[in-house]
Amino acid sequence: MPDDIRILTEADLRKAVTLDLGLVDVIERAFVALAQGGVVMPPVLSMDLATQNGEVDIKTACIPGFDSFAIKISTGFFGNAALGLPSLSGLMVVFSAHTGQVRAVLLDNGYLTDLRTAAAGAVAARHLAPADVSTAGVIGTGLQARLQMQAAHLVRPFTQALVWGRDADKAALCADDLSRTLGIPAQAVVDAEELVMRSQLVITTTPARAPVLQAEWLHPGLHVTAMGADAPDKNEIAPQALVRADLYAADRLSQVEVLGEFRSALAAGLWTKAPPPELGTIIVGQVPGRVDQQAITIADLTGTGAQDTAIASHVLGQSVRIDTTARHLSD
Amino acid sequence: MPDDIRILTEADLRKAVTLDLGLVDVIERAFVALAQGGVVMPPVLSMDLATQNGEVDIKTACIPGFDSFAIKISTGFFGNAALGLPSLSGLMVVFSAHTGQVRAVLLDNGYLTDLRTAAAGAVAARHLAPADVSTAGVIGTGLQARLQMQAAHLVRPFTQALVWGRDADKAALCADDLSRTLGIPAQAVVDAEELVMRSQLVITTTPARAPVLQAEWLHPGLHVTAMGADAPDKNEIAPQALVRADLYAADRLSQVEVLGEFRSALAAGLWTKAPPPELGTIIVGQVPGRVDQQAITIADLTGTGAQDTAIASHVLGQSVRIDTTARHLSD
Repeated sequence: MPDDIRILTEADLRKAVTLDLGLVDVIERAFVALAQGGVVMPPVLSMDLATQNGEVDIKTACIPGFDSFAIKISTGFFGNAALGLPSLSGLMVVFSAHTGQVRAVLLDNGYLTDLRTAAAGAVAARHLAPADVSTAGVIGTGLQARLQMQAAHLVRPFTQALVWGRDADKAALCADDLSRTLGIPAQAVVDAEELVMRSQLVITTTPARAPVLQAEWLHPGLHVTAMGADAPDKNEIAPQALVRADLYAADRLSQVEVLGEFRSALAAGLWTKAPPPELGTIIVGQVPGRVDQQAITIADLTGTGAQDTAIASHVLGQSVRIDTTARHLSD
Repeated sequence: MPDDIRILTEADLRKAVTLDLGLVDVIERAFVALAQGGVVMPPVLSMDLATQNGEVDIKTACIPGFDSFAIKISTGFFGNAALGLPSLSGLMVVFSAHTGQVRAVLLDNGYLTDLRTAAAGAVAARHLAPADVSTAGVIGTGLQARLQMQAAHLVRPFTQALVWGRDADKAALCADDLSRTLGIPAQAVVDAEELVMRSQLVITTTPARAPVLQAEWLHPGLHVTAMGADAPDKNEIAPQALVRADLYAADRLSQVEVLGEFRSALAAGLWTKAPPPELGTIIVGQVPGRVDQQAITIADLTGTGAQDTAIASHVLGQSVRIDTTARHLSD
């Protein structure tokens, strides 16, 4: 090999990068890059392994001005729990954008995806949520529910957290964790409608295949970030809600059309407005975002290869911190 | 990580696997698997990086009965020569087909792709070339030209080799190498037509965008394997030749329609026969192959993810030989 190749394990990566405002800025740059053009981002490669109850997704993007690009492979095998293994796994491979040579293998088991997904939620909240959010609610009780709330709290330091999930015990555990992590009161509520009613910022983090947030629950001064849908059969937000919102924005239009909430609205024949804007165009000011504090806004996040390239490049840039533990291979 | 992850470098892999009849059998099983059905093989993900004069291809396939599947990432950056770097690089990541966990990272820099591509050529020659091949010719002068001839010699031990390339010096060097490697006379010829006329087996290994082998050169008792085309703008064989041959077979129909020689024949409106068979269906006897020694046959190889999974699984199966040098990571 002409250059050393860095092999970083999940433990290395957990030391090198955490969820903070710096990372939110890193992921915001990926949204900005998409708006500025020149990003090469092929459609997601998805391999559905029905026999194994598994799926594999591959995302990548090359961003102008970045020295590296990442190829991210995510696996989800939903029989793993019975084997005592996590369902989700994966890694990122980082290549030089100038020579195509392998620069690093990030054996993150999905850690970097978890972080960049949460940071993308914070970017959406930063640019679309009302300026004052006192209560934020999350629909969903998994790891990403926790991370999304942590990330949102970085940009909207709300003082009360609400949680709803189909499993009340898991919702209570999630609320406990959030209370401890954020140092604020956090409460599991018995129905999702109540959560939406009491919140100015709502995040949905479920693998739902039927809406968990109804259009009639929308109220003035609400922002919703839907980050659960990432496949052509997922749907968290009632399609009518997208139409009813004052602003509905996508992370990537070509992705939400096939993988996100927008797919359901299109399929229902409900969307008759102009194509929705991408969040990056709002960030750079090409398109207006929230027009006033009473507006209702929805962000639809499917996760982009640009975000993967952004976090992977950031990790490699953290070289001083990483090099103490990194393994280097050279021939 | 629940399991060790093996990290193998190119040097490790060169010790573990070489081009021999055993490997040809391994790759033949990938063709057979495609014919038998049940293989999940998504379309190739291609990322064209025009600004960098680069391209990235990602191939994968999950084969029933295999414990692992590979995701192969190939990069080609064509300005690398000016930097003293090889144009082609890449790696394979191997996952458990049962749990989706990462099993190994094969940092092969394209070595395994080179081998499996050559072995696929041998599979085509084994099943389609005339029984007696005294002279074999290669159009192309690169590494794959050498490997294809070595692989073909394993299944058709010809006694004379011919080489043609646009650069006569490179053709002469290639002939010298082949003579030494195969222990037979090898000669660079001044035109491709002469090469085809004198050969019973011809392999084309060029990145040509206009045909280097003309239809009127075809003669009774000839087999041609075209392995250069792997992109929608490449074309080695005159489209009329595919029609004129008694049998034209693809490695994967869905790939040759967009990436292979068949694309050009379709685009020219020349193909009016039934869809061509896949080589695997000939191997398993579903479809007749060469009907007599005077037939003219053409195989069109674009390279499949099934071949990548087959060679990667084979490498991991060579554990006794590999484990002496492999690096294991575990948290």
